Amino acid sequence: MPTEPAFDAGLLSPVTVGHDGTVSDAAVLDALVAVEVALTRAWAAVGVAPTEAAEAVSSALGWQGAARVEHHIDLAALAAAGVSGGNPVIPLVAQLKESVPSAATAWVHAGATSQDILDTAVMLVASRAVPRIVDALRSAEHHLTALAVTRRDQVAAARTLTQHAVPTTVGLRAATWLRGIRRAADRLEAVELPAQLGGAGGTLAAFVAIAAHSGADAGAAVRLPAAFAAELGLRTPEAPWHVTRWPVTELGDALVQAIDAVGKLAADVATLSRTEIGEVAEGSSGGSSAMPQKQNPARSVLLRSAALRAPQLGATLHLAAAFAVDERPDGAWHAEWPTLRELLRLALGAAANADELAKGLVVDDEAVTRNLGLTRGLIVAERLSHEPDLVARAEIPGVIAAVSAGTALADVLGGPRAAEVADPTGYTGLAGPLTDAATGQQPDPSLEFPDPA
Amino acid sequence: MPTEPAFDAGLLSPVTVGHDGTVSDAAVLDALVAVEVALTRAWAAVGVAPTEAAEAVSSALGWQGAARVEHHIDLAALAAAGVSGGNPVIPLVAQLKESVPSAATAWVHAGATSQDILDTAVMLVASRAVPRIVDALRSAEHHLTALAVTRRDQVAAARTLTQHAVPTTVGLRAATWLRGIRRAADRLEAVELPAQLGGAGGTLAAFVAIAAHSGADAGAAVRLPAAFAAELGLRTPEAPWHVTRWPVTELGDALVQAIDAVGKLAADVATLSRTEIGEVAEGSSGGSSAMPQKQNPARSVLLRSAALRAPQLGATLHLAAAFAVDERPDGAWHAEWPTLRELLRLALGAAANADELAKGLVVDDEAVTRNLGLTRGLIVAERLSHEPDLVARAEIPGVIAAVSAGTALADVLGGPRAAEVADPTGYTGLAGPLTDAATGQQPDPSLEFPDPA
Amino acid sequence: MPTEPAFDAGLLSPVTVGHDGTVSDAAVLDALVAVEVALTRAWAAVGVAPTEAAEAVSSALGWQGAARVEHHIDLAALAAAGVSGGNPVIPLVAQLKESVPSAATAWVHAGATSQDILDTAVMLVASRAVPRIVDALRSAEHHLTALAVTRRDQVAAARTLTQHAVPTTVGLRAATWLRGIRRAADRLEAVELPAQLGGAGGTLAAFVAIAAHSGADAGAAVRLPAAFAAELGLRTPEAPWHVTRWPVTELGDALVQAIDAVGKLAADVATLSRTEIGEVAEGSSGGSSAMPQKQNPARSVLLRSAALRAPQLGATLHLAAAFAVDERPDGAWHAEWPTLRELLRLALGAAANADELAKGLVVDDEAVTRNLGLTRGLIVAERLSHEPDLVARAEIPGVIAAVSAGTALADVLGGPRAAEVADPTGYTGLAGPLTDAATGQQPDPSLEFPDPA
Amino acid sequence: MPTEPAFDAGLLSPVTVGHDGTVSDAAVLDALVAVEVALTRAWAAVGVAPTEAAEAVSSALGWQGAARVEHHIDLAALAAAGVSGGNPVIPLVAQLKESVPSAATAWVHAGATSQDILDTAVMLVASRAVPRIVDALRSAEHHLTALAVTRRDQVAAARTLTQHAVPTTVGLRAATWLRGIRRAADRLEAVELPAQLGGAGGTLAAFVAIAAHSGADAGAAVRLPAAFAAELGLRTPEAPWHVTRWPVTELGDALVQAIDAVGKLAADVATLSRTEIGEVAEGSSGGSSAMPQKQNPARSVLLRSAALRAPQLGATLHLAAAFAVDERPDGAWHAEWPTLRELLRLALGAAANADELAKGLVVDDEAVTRNLGLTRGLIVAERLSHEPDLVARAEIPGVIAAVSAGTALADVLGGPRAAEVADPTGYTGLAGPLTDAATGQQPDPSLEFPDPA
Repeated sequence: MPTEPAFDAGLLSPVTVGHDGTVSDAAVLDALVAVEVALTRAWAAVGVAPTEAAEAVSSALGWQGAARVEHHIDLAALAAAGVSGGNPVIPLVAQLKESVPSAATAWVHAGATSQDILDTAVMLVASRAVPRIVDALRSAEHHLTALAVTRRDQVAAARTLTQHAVPTTVGLRAATWLRGIRRAADRLEAVELPAQLGGAGGTLAAFVAIAAHSGADAGAAVRLPAAFAAELGLRTPEAPWHVTRWPVTELGDALVQAIDAVGKLAADVATLSRTEIGEVAEGSSGGSSAMPQKQNPARSVLLRSAALRAPQLGATLHLAAAFAVDERPDGAWHAEWPTLRELLRLALGAAANADELAKGLVVDDEAVTRNLGLTRGLIVAERLSHEPDLVARAEIPGVIAAVSAGTALADVLGGPRAAEVADPTGYTGLAGPLTDAATGQQPDPSLEFPDPA
Repeated sequence: MPTEPAFDAGLLSPVTVGHDGTVSDAAVLDALVAVEVALTRAWAAVGVAPTEAAEAVSSALGWQGAARVEHHIDLAALAAAGVSGGNPVIPLVAQLKESVPSAATAWVHAGATSQDILDTAVMLVASRAVPRIVDALRSAEHHLTALAVTRRDQVAAARTLTQHAVPTTVGLRAATWLRGIRRAADRLEAVELPAQLGGAGGTLAAFVAIAAHSGADAGAAVRLPAAFAAELGLRTPEAPWHVTRWPVTELGDALVQAIDAVGKLAADVATLSRTEIGEVAEGSSGGSSAMPQKQNPARSVLLRSAALRAPQLGATLHLAAAFAVDERPDGAWHAEWPTLRELLRLALGAAANADELAKGLVVDDEAVTRNLGLTRGLIVAERLSHEPDLVARAEIPGVIAAVSAGTALADVLGGPRAAEVADPTGYTGLAGPLTDAATGQQPDPSLEFPDPA
Repeated sequence: MPTEPAFDAGLLSPVTVGHDGTVSDAAVLDALVAVEVALTRAWAAVGVAPTEAAEAVSSALGWQGAARVEHHIDLAALAAAGVSGGNPVIPLVAQLKESVPSAATAWVHAGATSQDILDTAVMLVASRAVPRIVDALRSAEHHLTALAVTRRDQVAAARTLTQHAVPTTVGLRAATWLRGIRRAADRLEAVELPAQLGGAGGTLAAFVAIAAHSGADAGAAVRLPAAFAAELGLRTPEAPWHVTRWPVTELGDALVQAIDAVGKLAADVATLSRTEIGEVAEGSSGGSSAMPQKQNPARSVLLRSAALRAPQLGATLHLAAAFAVDERPDGAWHAEWPTLRELLRLALGAAANADELAKGLVVDDEAVTRNLGLTRGLIVAERLSHEPDLVARAEIPGVIAAVSAGTALADVLGGPRAAEVADPTGYTGLAGPLTDAATGQQPDPSLEFPDPA
Repeated sequence: MPTEPAFDAGLLSPVTVGHDGTVSDAAVLDALVAVEVALTRAWAAVGVAPTEAAEAVSSALGWQGAARVEHHIDLAALAAAGVSGGNPVIPLVAQLKESVPSAATAWVHAGATSQDILDTAVMLVASRAVPRIVDALRSAEHHLTALAVTRRDQVAAARTLTQHAVPTTVGLRAATWLRGIRRAADRLEAVELPAQLGGAGGTLAAFVAIAAHSGADAGAAVRLPAAFAAELGLRTPEAPWHVTRWPVTELGDALVQAIDAVGKLAADVATLSRTEIGEVAEGSSGGSSAMPQKQNPARSVLLRSAALRAPQLGATLHLAAAFAVDERPDGAWHAEWPTLRELLRLALGAAANADELAKGLVVDDEAVTRNLGLTRGLIVAERLSHEPDLVARAEIPGVIAAVSAGTALADVLGGPRAAEVADPTGYTGLAGPLTDAATGQQPDPSLEFPDPA
């Protein structure tokens, strides 16, 4: 069984995304059904619905906890029926009521509005996707840590504005990727995914009425959202967030940040694997329909595609949040669904690909060394200004011109320290300690960086 | 048979979009197959491939012209196989070669690169979707023209920055919607959809080699793109546009403009159908899972959702164009596919919904009149500054204060012309002639607007 | 002295934004100068530069701590000189060296690269703007809390998809605004703004070389970033973040979230102040060049304008982060500067306007009541399904039809409980306790919501 | 006098953009004043205002046609005064009335609403900026044509997905840049920039009233927009476009397309000038504050920065168009101003830089040749499948493996045709004719491409 989520480049829709279908249509439908079951169960948990009703609904819809349900709802029919009303919950409730024993039908969707079900289902889908994304990012971190440790002292050319700048190390480059991905994973892990329960206008009035009709007091309705959230493993909401959409935008921002972080990795891998540079290669490369020799950095290409798309999807979520007028907006809410699903899908695929990319990344030592020497020593030109005894500041342009003309820097400089100064491996600054700090190794206490604060 | 394309709000993926599946996965696959057939046929058309080969391929893949093909390619298998290489053409070519007689296999994909096939298939899909979108917009124009003609002289409140401003007419408002939609349809109709044929690097070198190998000269390769485009009903490309992506961005811009135009209609309908305003209602409204009395402007809501999403999809296409580095970019190209498909899907759904919305739109005469009178005449306050004989400029603030306090403007003004001046129906300026100009009716030659120039 | 930052709608560039010019060109220049001074001072703080050099530079450039400097750098000349090199630091350093005693020139910009100075200056500008934004948001929270407390029990129509849905309260609506703004302010307050110090390639090699040249060990360079950050009141960076751009995107996301939150407030105020609705009015309104009676919700309009723009600016920051190739990218870094400045500017103006809007917001009790009664009781139609003793479920459509036809719900229902059931003020659910929870008041322990978890 | 517009990377605001300040604050103010003068003049032109009034206003405000005016309006005061009302027209009109003889004051702003003045002023600013952008693009086309002609037959490596693919030519690459830029310039040249004149609600009612008050009929108001547009050299509007915003979005789309086109050029130049590739260099390069040897592709970097930002600005314009509710929207209109100005500014700077970049671009022949040979012949691997007599298809992988291992392709192939087949210069397909077609040269009629159609 493949353990890697499929990553569709998007020409054809993915049949599933992730082999467990984390954000597939079927997964969304399962989440909608699970949410409805959870609501009935929550009513029982707060002592309003009869336990039998909750059991009957749970049993009829194959409740196994959270999104694990076994039902017979017809996805295609539901999608078709959901068009006219603008959302699939109305026809879903009808089908669910037909699926459960008649004594329990009154407890299906009891007090809820479509938005309660939809928003909670989206959070439930996210609550299953996010840990998978985080796991893949953590695994990528693991591989990058190994790379950084192994390559801690391998000197390579640093490039700024496309040009060789000064020396760095392969290890520090890996540590940089690692830091970005770790930060993103930390942020994603901290995202709060609350259930939504507010009723038609966010007052929970119908829940109070139902509780009252059953002889319970309003306290039951007060406790209902927490019970509902608990059934689904979601966070108890502070209050209904029907038109306070930070749960969606904060999730979206964290997903985009994750894609940014692996996008940076991919940008470097794509660049460093250029034919002329060749410092790295993806472990498994893509082929070509025309050119048999091609070894394309296919994972990086897909990651870069995702990175080019994700920010605008995130922007749409923010627009939807800012235009959440009234107690349920006239379009902004609807704009979130496909956008957030696509963002989850992109992040799932991107994280999995980044993990594989990090795992398989191959460094070509020879290319690293060859490139480092390409400027005949000019890569340490910055250093000359710190060597006034060796070369006066006014003479530096002349030295650079001579090296540019073809002579090696060491030869232009001449003298006993020339070779040492011109050697890029001697000008890597704190690359080692910075790498150690990122990888959790800190052999030299005198070079330990202070904590961020 | 339903004539209306399904418009999915996006929580569940649409099983099909459009009942003929214009941009479904199956349609994209059909387009890919059709493009490959067309290439073989083009080779025959320029006299290089044997006619029998073209016929064999056409027959084996059920060619009926352009995207009408009958094949047995397995969509799900293809989608899965396409993941590793980053695009589905490589596995598709293998399947196609197995599907055609062995004598013809050499002419399948002959000389092409994946991008030739993909880009052309995307244009082919667009060439089928765009006329449907234009047709729906033209139909919406038809309904809005009728509305504008019928309501040419029905005076209503114009609103600026949410406040009643001056009088306008329902007809002019309809004419405004009409103008925006017509402009967008004109633009979309003018979009150029060229075939793509450049080979691995945009030089058509493989095509020249194949022609030479068959004893033809390079002129055959020169004529090949036009022949290829002709088979598919696409525009002959000026040159390969593998990294000159205006065919994608100009299409994208036109699609976004179309969605903008119907979005403006939807914004007004959503606003004017607010409970307190009630000047219009959608002919068929959406229901609620909780509130039985609700008559939601469901079409407007879905249109507004599309309008909030489309611009950012268009932006992604532009980013992809600007980042089309090299002779095929490392991610930017891949970012186009899902984005353009989603934009086509949104535009198809939006145009069809706008058509239905325009067709069914109901005006509540009573509400129009009631709202017009709501400010007791202040809606013509602007007019007072043009009536110095009736009220001195310095007195206008006092008049306004008196009306604000509850007295009707006519009463505050007093005198013989007061009622006339205070009557909103007498202050509609050129609303009538402007409406006529939009609807193609121009009864009064003295009020004919000069042509734009 | 005006206490309110100017909020420019953008046709004319603001002469200053904020009366202290928080993000003006002059403020950015001050920050650049301050950062250079801080670097020299940090060198002294870690014991490498002579204290006299730091004092000379501090004195020559009028250092008063963080961004408070007094210098004579010519802004216009610098802006012009910065064009060719792509950033203003190169000409700035030249001017600074001329401004300080010659004995100290070697300690100006010692070891730094342009990006160190620019990134840190941007963070310094942000560190001054963010607290102002947060303060304004906190003040808005204060006004909204007062509104929510005062209006806790004022019943009003809740609207979903533009239509009256069920009753809510003015207090709960204010509490909803409050929650969104509070969340955004909390997020913004938690944003980390680190200094940047990495040298030409992120290895701090030049800093190590300078330390060595002065007889210090590499530990001095290790301690330098913390000392540098301390001088400026910025966070010590974990490591150079030259191509790990989360400090920029996390700040950007928080700014966009803040604008979203006040955008939601503005969306509601703009809607509720429509002529036909009139439930609220801005305390001070905008006028019109043509219509003397107009009282425009000018603050809401400007807030909505900001809310429509900010998300795409945030998206640009994410794109820049994902495309931060190499050790300094070829364009992505440059795209951040104007984008982040504009976002800070928008957030400063938006927060200040939201504060004023919240402070001045006027509720029209009569309009609230009038609108609540507009549907003759249908606003509690949902409630009927929870009153089976009063009306059978099958009869509900008939009841609704009768009310739609003009009879009041209480009359249609008839019987002793009719008036009670039809009274919207009796169907507000937990609006009160939810408001209390948001405003920090919780009189009834039995209705205390559990903590989010 | 410098002929090149300044291109600010954005950290500091540009003092002017373009040495004639095409889109500076002063230029916008001039345009606002010019538009007001033009309106008065148009009133005279249609025979309603006295010629003396038009002359008095023209003279007082220094009218010299279109945006050339000489006035004494205080920009800073106006910007400050414009904040509270949300736009600067209200205080401007007051200042203008004070500036003109009292007999003429009634004809200042006569009948207009703020939006008439603002929208027309924006179009006027655009009408001055767009030809400058087009001119710069045409000049860039000229330089690229020369490059393409000169380098028509210089063979170079084509790259796809970052890897060497097949041979192409420097000339065809230049032709590709040329085609993209030419298309964008054509589109920009075709953009329609209409004046706006609709009055408070788009009905021109005040204009009709003023005409009537002066004894003219409504026909004068019908002719007024054309006369107004003629004074300013703008297009006569079909109708008021106050809430039909295609003039803004079509302009925006064309500007973004122009930036895309030069962005593609910059992407290639940045890549090709990488230290390891070195095939091209910018004629004048940027320096570094730390590294004296650096020759940065500074123009490409700035162009890429613009290309990363522009699409999201374009998206904001579309959002504003789709959300243009009512007869003047509550925020969407205001969002256009800064966005369109920034887009004009970016396009002005980008086009001028692209022109300079194209003019100065230096090709390193040696690097081109060196890179072409880097794969020892694998760059023509595609060709092997068209040479069955030389190498059987089944043997191709073995050949590729042997070349990858270090032997040149010609040696691996062996035999008399080996050198010819392995020579990249013999596998450039139609690169020459494609280049000719782009540069307008077509020596060989048998290789003339058919017209696009």
